[in-house]
Amino acid sequence: LEDTKKLEQARSILKYGAPSQGPYLRFYENHVLAYDQSKRTPIWVAEYLTKANVEGPANRKNVKFRPDPNVTVMYTAHNSDYLGSGWSRGHMSPAGDNKHSQEAMRESFYLSNVVPQDLQNNGGFWNRLEMYCRDLTKTYQSIIIISGPLILPQERNGKQIVEYEVIGKSQVSVPTHLFKVVLAESDSMPTKPLGVFIVPNKPIGFEHSLTEFQVELEELERVAGVTFLPKLDRKQVSDLCKVNGCKLMKKEKFQLYFITRKIQSSRSIKHLDKVWGELEENKLQPDEYMVNLYNSKREELMNVEKDKSNVTK
Amino acid sequence: LEDTKKLEQARSILKYGAPSQGPYLRFYENHVLAYDQSKRTPIWVAEYLTKANVEGPANRKNVKFRPDPNVTVMYTAHNSDYLGSGWSRGHMSPAGDNKHSQEAMRESFYLSNVVPQDLQNNGGFWNRLEMYCRDLTKTYQSIIIISGPLILPQERNGKQIVEYEVIGKSQVSVPTHLFKVVLAESDSMPTKPLGVFIVPNKPIGFEHSLTEFQVELEELERVAGVTFLPKLDRKQVSDLCKVNGCKLMKKEKFQLYFITRKIQSSRSIKHLDKVWGELEENKLQPDEYMVNLYNSKREELMNVEKDKSNVTK
Ligand SMILES: [Mg+2]
Ligand SMILES: [Mg+2]
Repeated sequence: LEDTKKLEQARSILKYGAPSQGPYLRFYENHVLAYDQSKRTPIWVAEYLTKANVEGPANRKNVKFRPDPNVTVMYTAHNSDYLGSGWSRGHMSPAGDNKHSQEAMRESFYLSNVVPQDLQNNGGFWNRLEMYCRDLTKTYQSIIIISGPLILPQERNGKQIVEYEVIGKSQVSVPTHLFKVVLAESDSMPTKPLGVFIVPNKPIGFEHSLTEFQVELEELERVAGVTFLPKLDRKQVSDLCKVNGCKLMKKEKFQLYFITRKIQSSRSIKHLDKVWGELEENKLQPDEYMVNLYNSKREELMNVEKDKSNVTK
Repeated sequence: LEDTKKLEQARSILKYGAPSQGPYLRFYENHVLAYDQSKRTPIWVAEYLTKANVEGPANRKNVKFRPDPNVTVMYTAHNSDYLGSGWSRGHMSPAGDNKHSQEAMRESFYLSNVVPQDLQNNGGFWNRLEMYCRDLTKTYQSIIIISGPLILPQERNGKQIVEYEVIGKSQVSVPTHLFKVVLAESDSMPTKPLGVFIVPNKPIGFEHSLTEFQVELEELERVAGVTFLPKLDRKQVSDLCKVNGCKLMKKEKFQLYFITRKIQSSRSIKHLDKVWGELEENKLQPDEYMVNLYNSKREELMNVEKDKSNVTK
């Protein structure tokens, strides 16, 4: 009776519809997200990784960041908001998690999956965290990952103050932190390793370990206002960093990895040799694979440049 | 087929449930609200006013502010967050809109209906805006009102910066602004007058008119990230401030109103006479009703105090 009365009054109050923040869940080929129409960023982006979906031929070459066509125009971010802002476009579901499908890759570049991220953080520490998550698919059958932005207060003159920038005409909110919830599981394992991390949105050097940023799930839930994995039996959970170490790729290996990628994508001998020089500059020792890669790439580019100069003559 | 594939992947991604921000709509006897679990304030609070529900015997005497028992403990505000913070507890659905029912009155004191509000704004300009809305029930059959907090950026050194305080252990967000959407209607009228206001959360004097704070509905929707009255045919809408004037109660009448209330609630002759003195201090002319009220209250209190002194002897 009480409830009937409330619902009757609600019918009058909501006569012209309930105020709406848009659909809570948005579905894509390889991720599900909740979008914050006022911040013009996701609230969270969830993925399910297996060995199969982090491998494949899909690439980001012809894929561009663009407004998500599923978000009302008034509430979407635009590339122009980011350009010249000093903030990079940081994927929440990273491009590297979407290699099994060109469509999934394309959708990961929607700005609904993006937050303004410190450029060094994006290419450095956060990137290494993403690689670590992908690597977990070699050890576990599946990984559920939930990533998103956070805006946290700081102490100032005895008060708790929240301060953050909004960028561009769309006023996209720049988070002070980013979070990642990582749940690994295999049918054969009695527990499910869980790691939860809150990482400041700024440059983080190689001297910092991932475990420095580990928090309890409840702590993230408290500051985010979001309950994660509500149907998970938390008694079944173990500590990912105790079980698996949470070791990110070391500096030297990370640098070699990037130089390898640069060699692969070099388009001129001049550029290739400049990249090769970075090895010496950073006192890095190339392995046999890299030496072979360099030699074959150099031969390929020499042929290309010979052909070009023949055409020009 | 495309959608089936997405939903199948979603089943894996959301295997342990979708991250949750709690129920979007929360129903009460006289209001409906959406709650922000991270800010510990409502997002919006909607009401439906008629002449009948702004009148009645319900009062706030024995009603206290308290955490909403329907909100998860981790996400609710507490009285201790507000006390000593310098911010008052500002109703979104005001107590004065809930006089027809003691239960509705009680629910309006849940902290889910409350935001940290500047004390002078709460008792002054915003209070006068609420009175104006109640007065509209004398002219129109029904009024839909949607109120809530806003946090807006400011320009600083060529950047757009958002800055706000969070108070207490629960870190309740102090809004920079408050909004109100007011839609009036009567069966006999061809159009529905609509007024939308964004008011800074600070003292606003009598020299300011309500129309200074009027904005287009779309402007509020853009900054709030919320679409209001989605089923309303906006072609049927007229401008409340053009049709009805949007005049708030003038300073003198507002002061007389408060002195009247103070006379009614006086509990000693000393206090009563101090209140009566405020009339002269403020150069206010009491009307016949007030003079009679003062005289009968004084007689009542004299009898009470005589009885008391007899008991003491
Ligand atoms: Mg990235
Ligand atoms: Mg108030």
